[in-house]
Amino acid sequence: MSASDSTSSLPVTLDSINPKVLKCEYAVRGEIVNIAQRLQEDLKTNKDAYPFDEIIYCNIGNPQSLGQQPITFFREVLALCSHTALLDESATHGLFSSDSIARAWKILDQIPGKATGAYSHSQGIKGLRDAIAAGIEARDGFPADPNDIFMTDGASPGVHMMMQLLISSEKDGILCPIPQYPLYSASIALHGGSLVPYYLDEASGWGLEISELKKQLEDARSKGITVRALAVINPGNPTGQVLAEENQRDIVNFCKQEGLVILADEVYQENVYVPDKKFHSFKKVARSMGLGEKDIALVSFQSVSKGYYGECGKRGGYMEVTGFTSDVREQIYKVASVNLCSNISGQILASLIMSPPKPGDDSYESYIAEKDGILSSLAKRAKTLEEALKKLEGVTCNRAEGAMYLYPCINLPPKAIAAAEAAKTAADAFYCKRLLNATGIVLVPGSGFGQVPGTWHFRCTILPQEDKIPAIVNRLTEFHKSFMDEFRN
Amino acid sequence: MSASDSTSSLPVTLDSINPKVLKCEYAVRGEIVNIAQRLQEDLKTNKDAYPFDEIIYCNIGNPQSLGQQPITFFREVLALCSHTALLDESATHGLFSSDSIARAWKILDQIPGKATGAYSHSQGIKGLRDAIAAGIEARDGFPADPNDIFMTDGASPGVHMMMQLLISSEKDGILCPIPQYPLYSASIALHGGSLVPYYLDEASGWGLEISELKKQLEDARSKGITVRALAVINPGNPTGQVLAEENQRDIVNFCKQEGLVILADEVYQENVYVPDKKFHSFKKVARSMGLGEKDIALVSFQSVSKGYYGECGKRGGYMEVTGFTSDVREQIYKVASVNLCSNISGQILASLIMSPPKPGDDSYESYIAEKDGILSSLAKRAKTLEEALKKLEGVTCNRAEGAMYLYPCINLPPKAIAAAEAAKTAADAFYCKRLLNATGIVLVPGSGFGQVPGTWHFRCTILPQEDKIPAIVNRLTEFHKSFMDEFRN
Repeated sequence: MSASDSTSSLPVTLDSINPKVLKCEYAVRGEIVNIAQRLQEDLKTNKDAYPFDEIIYCNIGNPQSLGQQPITFFREVLALCSHTALLDESATHGLFSSDSIARAWKILDQIPGKATGAYSHSQGIKGLRDAIAAGIEARDGFPADPNDIFMTDGASPGVHMMMQLLISSEKDGILCPIPQYPLYSASIALHGGSLVPYYLDEASGWGLEISELKKQLEDARSKGITVRALAVINPGNPTGQVLAEENQRDIVNFCKQEGLVILADEVYQENVYVPDKKFHSFKKVARSMGLGEKDIALVSFQSVSKGYYGECGKRGGYMEVTGFTSDVREQIYKVASVNLCSNISGQILASLIMSPPKPGDDSYESYIAEKDGILSSLAKRAKTLEEALKKLEGVTCNRAEGAMYLYPCINLPPKAIAAAEAAKTAADAFYCKRLLNATGIVLVPGSGFGQVPGTWHFRCTILPQEDKIPAIVNRLTEFHKSFMDEFRN
Repeated sequence: MSASDSTSSLPVTLDSINPKVLKCEYAVRGEIVNIAQRLQEDLKTNKDAYPFDEIIYCNIGNPQSLGQQPITFFREVLALCSHTALLDESATHGLFSSDSIARAWKILDQIPGKATGAYSHSQGIKGLRDAIAAGIEARDGFPADPNDIFMTDGASPGVHMMMQLLISSEKDGILCPIPQYPLYSASIALHGGSLVPYYLDEASGWGLEISELKKQLEDARSKGITVRALAVINPGNPTGQVLAEENQRDIVNFCKQEGLVILADEVYQENVYVPDKKFHSFKKVARSMGLGEKDIALVSFQSVSKGYYGECGKRGGYMEVTGFTSDVREQIYKVASVNLCSNISGQILASLIMSPPKPGDDSYESYIAEKDGILSSLAKRAKTLEEALKKLEGVTCNRAEGAMYLYPCINLPPKAIAAAEAAKTAADAFYCKRLLNATGIVLVPGSGFGQVPGTWHFRCTILPQEDKIPAIVNRLTEFHKSFMDEFRN
């Protein structure tokens, strides 16, 4: 229930709220998703009114909402840590793997008083941060310090925290890829900074060119903007590219020379689908170049929401903060303390994804089977959807090397663009709304991520279960054909 | 690991970060807690170096860290929702209460695809919001709308969200009680607003006088500050008073007349320990005055961290947002969407605390026994500690009618104040540091909450387990005596 807009006796109006809030946009849950939610409600009672019988949410990287099953071992440990009395019951041994029981005990021993219901240290439980640091070390081959880990409720709060630290006014700029995951533009807007765009090169598979970074940096500086950091998303969102190590070295050098913090969104580090590409963390790349703690400021964001586990609802994650002076670190700690701590289930899960079952553990075989099953299916789905999209008239599509998305370019006919203009909407949003109403498929228009002006895109997740993909491809193909027929000149 | 402060090649320095971050303070996890954490580490290896064998954290309302056990029913449901495969096993019936199994099924049925690992609706899972709205209705006797509920990771993110909405610059003010829980001052500082203090009257049991509100409002307005909202904490933190209904009516009238949003921190609503006081929500009070959705803007914050359950680590909570126009509500929804959703375990728990077992349910008897055991023990501890504090030389102490704290006033000798000045610290912080080093007891000095200038206080939680209270009282009494002896003129 909310009062109607004409009610003027209420104290808060659009004119009186923080204009930074008004400026912020977040298309991943924007207008099209709102329409979809209304359709879904209406479908319950008005099934016959629509040419489809369900809404398929391809707008957001939310695997379990589309039927992906959680990794059993992780959930066993979470259940045991939720209701620790189970650990004293002999029947528990029949219901849980032996390594999940052992892991739960180990975790409980790391929590003062075994109290999973207590606030933890502001950075997260020390023993869990030890496990994460060990996991980073095993991944990178370079040391990681548990005191550099700040555990967060997903990656988003970590990004906000860094933006809050770095942005004082619109004179502070953050270099952001275009297209970008709109958390970055939203967070920069909310904190009142300036987004300094750098365009990824679609023609070279969403390549990140240093010359483009330099050009945009100089352009921003000429406008009086102090550029504070470079945000880089690897594997890319919404673009799905995986950066080459040499490219990453150039980026590190550029940031070092220009005095920029690297904000490395590495939440898709487990999601790489092509044999010719491999994930390298920016920290590993920097350390392998001989650049240490005193040479480069680097924040790496990780999340339990992505990877093969896809535990979005648990809101777990961490940031690894390196290359900051101790007095600045104290400020980050203080801001983390104001929110007390991130949720303990999410903390436990973040430690589990960085230290999963090992060969010889009771769960190991089934864990590997679950993990490989999910990742190989995602690779298959990415390929199938890419092939289907490329067959559509006027559509080109880079491959999804990683992450969870395809971001095809669609050459819309002038008549469609004119119709969108008449409807006061972006042309790609016009296309996506039409698609939703015709098929129930929810995509996010490229205008929500940014794109070279005059080009049009949409983002489509690769997450619907395999048995649904053929129907999605059919519906999309059929709709596209009729859309193009309608608006072809 | 962090680079030393002298390392000048790193890009971020105290001079270059957001000055709002520098300005923010949060004493509940400030310097004294940092010292305590170092002592605790050192105690592990240097037991003989200290006149105490453990650190007792009375600085923060964190019941389970001090041995309070979780409510069994809540944890059963959380475990079943964490590892839903348990629901298919017959052995589960031997391990879990039948109503926890039924409740888990009910909750899973409310989640699309039963996916507890998926992001939810930005405001939280609809079925859980239905349960919360029903709980509010049962509490207040007035309707509540699930669409008014925004689920949050504890109360703190909700407070931040509202501050972000209401504060555009230092010209926007928020009326805050002094003393106050420093989340409010920290959040106002981080968002760049002005804290407009109103002093609670210690002599009348921390009374909230309308004349004081008026005086401070006028004073702020004369300085060009637009006061946007009144923050009120009931039961009080750190002051423990429970507002009388008549007083609440006056506050509601004042806010209506002056066009202020009421930000009602009601997280201690279950924590009332005296028979002559009762919790009334501000919404119930406003509705019982005939003021509806169109008459008064009101946000009520609730949390799973407090109450008799004390599930701080789960980071669950909600805000009930009423009296905002639909276009402003859309902005709140948008900001919530940027963070996707609060954690699902916390969401489930928030629904459980607002709809606990009912008479006839399998768990009911044991649930009531657990709940009553905790609340009556807290009442006893509050009384014992209050009596002990009142016996100390120069100390006066209002009773803890509710919440989890005592906030005694301590008349420090001039010599102690001079010694504190020489040590460049507030006199109450000087006292608390001395106490920590002598006894291992961690308190928060009144200067972290605010107090009438020239008076000194500290906040002490009532949370240590009953069997520890006598030792705490002894140590505190002994320390206080020797402190006063040392500094008596």
